[in-house]
Amino acid sequence: MAEASRTSEARRDAVFGRWVVFSPARSRRPTDLKSHSPTNPSPGPSPGADSPAPPKPSCPFCAGRESECAPQIFRVPPDGTLPWRIRVIQNLYPALRRDVEPPPPPPVLPEGEAPPDEPGERAVPGFGFHDVVIETPRHDVRLWDLDAEGVRDVLLAYAERVRQLGEHPAVKYVQVFKNHGASAGASMAHSHSQMLGTPFVPPSVTTRLNCMKEIFDRSGNCSLCEIRSKDILISETPNFSAIVPFAASYPFEIWIIPRQHISYFHEIDQDKALDLGSLLKTMLQKLSKQLNDPPFNFMIHSAPFGLSSSCLPYTHWFLQIVPQLSVIGGFELGSGCYINPVFPEDAAKILRELDCSV
Amino acid sequence: MAEASRTSEARRDAVFGRWVVFSPARSRRPTDLKSHSPTNPSPGPSPGADSPAPPKPSCPFCAGRESECAPQIFRVPPDGTLPWRIRVIQNLYPALRRDVEPPPPPPVLPEGEAPPDEPGERAVPGFGFHDVVIETPRHDVRLWDLDAEGVRDVLLAYAERVRQLGEHPAVKYVQVFKNHGASAGASMAHSHSQMLGTPFVPPSVTTRLNCMKEIFDRSGNCSLCEIRSKDILISETPNFSAIVPFAASYPFEIWIIPRQHISYFHEIDQDKALDLGSLLKTMLQKLSKQLNDPPFNFMIHSAPFGLSSSCLPYTHWFLQIVPQLSVIGGFELGSGCYINPVFPEDAAKILRELDCSV
Repeated sequence: MAEASRTSEARRDAVFGRWVVFSPARSRRPTDLKSHSPTNPSPGPSPGADSPAPPKPSCPFCAGRESECAPQIFRVPPDGTLPWRIRVIQNLYPALRRDVEPPPPPPVLPEGEAPPDEPGERAVPGFGFHDVVIETPRHDVRLWDLDAEGVRDVLLAYAERVRQLGEHPAVKYVQVFKNHGASAGASMAHSHSQMLGTPFVPPSVTTRLNCMKEIFDRSGNCSLCEIRSKDILISETPNFSAIVPFAASYPFEIWIIPRQHISYFHEIDQDKALDLGSLLKTMLQKLSKQLNDPPFNFMIHSAPFGLSSSCLPYTHWFLQIVPQLSVIGGFELGSGCYINPVFPEDAAKILRELDCSV
Repeated sequence: MAEASRTSEARRDAVFGRWVVFSPARSRRPTDLKSHSPTNPSPGPSPGADSPAPPKPSCPFCAGRESECAPQIFRVPPDGTLPWRIRVIQNLYPALRRDVEPPPPPPVLPEGEAPPDEPGERAVPGFGFHDVVIETPRHDVRLWDLDAEGVRDVLLAYAERVRQLGEHPAVKYVQVFKNHGASAGASMAHSHSQMLGTPFVPPSVTTRLNCMKEIFDRSGNCSLCEIRSKDILISETPNFSAIVPFAASYPFEIWIIPRQHISYFHEIDQDKALDLGSLLKTMLQKLSKQLNDPPFNFMIHSAPFGLSSSCLPYTHWFLQIVPQLSVIGGFELGSGCYINPVFPEDAAKILRELDCSV
């Protein structure tokens, strides 16, 4: 379908059950959509730069400033006599605190039975974990400037820390996310990601699981395994597909989905993490090139810990990338429904055909 | 409870079922929280200005530029020989279009039975209505610069247009909203509101109704009728309460709630609209004064059309005001869970004690 012939359409997705209004009349041509607030006017490190750039005077995430950070949890490589490439540390200003009394562990219930939880207003102590993954010792390197092995190691550090947090009986979910650019929520310019281990299952996770369960109950299929359209495909590797989802809430939103049905991100192995690292790097390069280095967020959507085995057939983890190109207004805030000026098929075609190899 | 003694807390509300993390350590004192991007550096019209300011050359919402707008639906006063005070017009760049084929009306079902709707991916033509309410002919007047009668008339114009849209068999819901300031989504500086009549019930509305139903089924009470805490109250009038909700997702978020149980906003009468107009004006003045004229959104949360009578006991309309003070990052996008640095009791106390009469 040619861009020119598109007319407004409302679409509902099969993962969150969200309605999105596609309204091409409200925008210029999709190829003209650019970020007005690029996050990094400098083009990254100069090719062939061997020695680390000097740390930025005020940045505690740079090599040599470790003592200004909250305590370290682990580092890569573990050998302290070698320089670090990745550090996982506590957040100095945690939203949830590991030092308060956790809620009691839930009772052990028969398979498939939900724990009792009275609806309504409730307040619990702000227990939880809020950690930071410093992706590189260098201030001027972005995640997609690392080679595929470097991105792999960041992903493996996420997985390792998620596994550790999952061992705490009061942690129900870990939200892994990256904010890039101040308007996407990054308070530090130095490349990093974060994760929050929460004592409750967050609302979007519950909505997603309920929606995928309903579809599975009716069709016998996992919503994400069912995606086959070539029109929305950007790129495929042996283990992952990168698509613009059928009912993308945001222009140029990308989902990277394991081609094999897997519920938990943190079960990823070295080979798959390298494959994912390579694809994630390419997708971030494409977004940066096509959209003028936009602020963005990415989020890993996995399954809550301790899910009963009957839920596994309809839970399928994926990574969502959202470039920040549009403003959220009262319609979106009030209705939970998004207006997207770019049809997924058009965004996918542009990203698919964009060459980042040069 | 004094501000100083607050520690992190997670709270779940009884309307949307959302978890919010209150994390005072991540912010300065609540009284120091200000907007860094005030929307209107000029203080509004000078007191005693009698003659309309000249229209801004490029603004089609100003008096005298009516021909540059999309078609008018109605005006206040209706008498075309008098100058208009309010115009309700079509949106020139509608997200949903009134000129495409609407979906067929749903079958008539027995009381309480949901219409069949297969879950999963779905696409429908982008039918719907997208209208604009120009709140004043003057470019330099903000909604809260109008007197209470002026705000009343804007609210009555909303209600009239919602009633008209509700008569269309394919319109399931009308989302009324106002965006103030570019970073809150306003593309025009001239004071206006919008509404979208949608051919589906938006996701947040479904979530809200399900949450309120669950509480009603267990307790026999409406979640909003149950709110009695004086700690979160800002102001009360004969017909409305203004509160900072117990689990506010955003700092200084305000809800204005009818004290009497009413499901539909559009049933508001002249007296109640005047009462609401006065309270809304005061709340917007307080936010502007306390937070340095922040960008904001407000949304009216009403019930979907054609709700069966068994649903009315747990649906209760309200108006939500959200000042834009914080950035939405990957945690919020991914989990649907918000981090709020200001406890509702602290925000309510500050707003309650703020004097806007001078």
